[in-house]
Amino acid sequence: MTLNDEWITEICDDYGSAFSLKGRGRVFEQQSAFQKVEVFDTASYGKLMLIDGCTMVSTRDNFLYHEMMSHPVLFTHRAPRRVAIIGGGDCGTLREVLKHPEVEHAVQIDIDEVVTRAAELHFPELCASNADPRAELLFIDGIQWMKDATPNSLDVIIVDSTDPIGPGEVLFTPEFYRACHRALDDGGMVVQQSESPLIHMAILERMYRSLQASDFADARTLFFPQPIYPTGWWSATIGAKNGNLDSFRDADVAAKAFETTYYNTEIHRAAFAQPEFFRKARESWLTGR
Amino acid sequence: MTLNDEWITEICDDYGSAFSLKGRGRVFEQQSAFQKVEVFDTASYGKLMLIDGCTMVSTRDNFLYHEMMSHPVLFTHRAPRRVAIIGGGDCGTLREVLKHPEVEHAVQIDIDEVVTRAAELHFPELCASNADPRAELLFIDGIQWMKDATPNSLDVIIVDSTDPIGPGEVLFTPEFYRACHRALDDGGMVVQQSESPLIHMAILERMYRSLQASDFADARTLFFPQPIYPTGWWSATIGAKNGNLDSFRDADVAAKAFETTYYNTEIHRAAFAQPEFFRKARESWLTGR
Repeated sequence: MTLNDEWITEICDDYGSAFSLKGRGRVFEQQSAFQKVEVFDTASYGKLMLIDGCTMVSTRDNFLYHEMMSHPVLFTHRAPRRVAIIGGGDCGTLREVLKHPEVEHAVQIDIDEVVTRAAELHFPELCASNADPRAELLFIDGIQWMKDATPNSLDVIIVDSTDPIGPGEVLFTPEFYRACHRALDDGGMVVQQSESPLIHMAILERMYRSLQASDFADARTLFFPQPIYPTGWWSATIGAKNGNLDSFRDADVAAKAFETTYYNTEIHRAAFAQPEFFRKARESWLTGR
Repeated sequence: MTLNDEWITEICDDYGSAFSLKGRGRVFEQQSAFQKVEVFDTASYGKLMLIDGCTMVSTRDNFLYHEMMSHPVLFTHRAPRRVAIIGGGDCGTLREVLKHPEVEHAVQIDIDEVVTRAAELHFPELCASNADPRAELLFIDGIQWMKDATPNSLDVIIVDSTDPIGPGEVLFTPEFYRACHRALDDGGMVVQQSESPLIHMAILERMYRSLQASDFADARTLFFPQPIYPTGWWSATIGAKNGNLDSFRDADVAAKAFETTYYNTEIHRAAFAQPEFFRKARESWLTGR
């Protein structure tokens, strides 16, 4: 079968796969100072945002990514009050973070304001908490912001970034993790999207080695479905500044006063289950063998 | 971006999505009495089998599907000795089933011998146990076979079928489940692939209602990644003839003498975790509200 030009296709070149959604026309297009931001209407996934041709977020399946980038780490931290989101310009992660009443301040640092303007127009539900008095939106370089951050000033850092190619690459280096480590307070945690376990094990290995090299005391990966990303199987990796990631505030999850579509106590535990091939690989990364 | 004709594309029409793999040429093509069977070499997923243009199995990711269709149900059953596989012509499920030393007899009933011949040529690793003395391969109608099966003669039935459209549709009806219920011995279980929780909730609802209507005592769904199927997020649903599905032989999983790539004790537990939206829907199906 071939696809006519109604279809919006993202090719994953390195792995020889492609994902397409049937489109119903482009509703937003702007070349920002940094990248090309587009939004399409689709036949079945609602709106779809592309950045430089890469699939970023859809109305239908973003709940998986945004819930899993925020709730597991926030319910693992003992008392998350101060949160920074690097990237995250569609504001969906910010919205989930602000569902936690303990959070006193959440700053989102995305270099490109055009992404947020496009989200406000076409994903208004993701921007529902942008006017929360606890929210701060900065449109500056998040890497520099992290380098300049006051030491011990953050409880949780969420790196909601693009893939580790081009400008996003520095987010996967020991230098960046060292800046995060310094900015985190005791008990602090960083979480970062860590690509697909089926095809990106080299990236996951690099993250583990970088987290170790920057003195993080523990690291764990959680897994979740993400249909619009390559393979549909995605991950995020948490690093703990000190202590370990063995437990979470399960009673607080069970008693949470807000709604989720995917996340709950069972899913929290399940997300950290390690596939056999991953368990073996992680063990070799951690022991250096 | 558009895809040139090197790419092999499966369009999921109902949901306006498509998945493509970059091809390196067709290595098998035969129109059987039932369907068109093709195998392609791909750039990164190994071989790929299509039936009537629908993606069936790839070298790279089939371990997820085959392990999750077999090990969870077999380690939930107390002592699985007699197993029947309906469909499953690529023989990958049969291979996983025969890793269990308790299994004394496993019969695979796929109507189309051409599928198995193509697998023997292009997925020989999946056919590694076809000559096991405990294996029996039949190329006849599995639905009729199940209707004719001796009552109480099976411990586990694995329905490794195509989608519930066309000839596969009857596999999702109460009539078929009633035949399975009759063929199962006390403590028996049926497991069936149950499509994507993101886009096929109507099919899952139909399965639950059919299982209830055929007197199955308990039903649970397990979730796993399956990159080459629509959304990359797949499920299987287990029905228990009597008793419940609350526990499994976890000590036996931990002590298993065979290798797996995905499945282990943690993954077993994790697979049964219910996403919040699914938990609510299942509750309403079971209570009839």
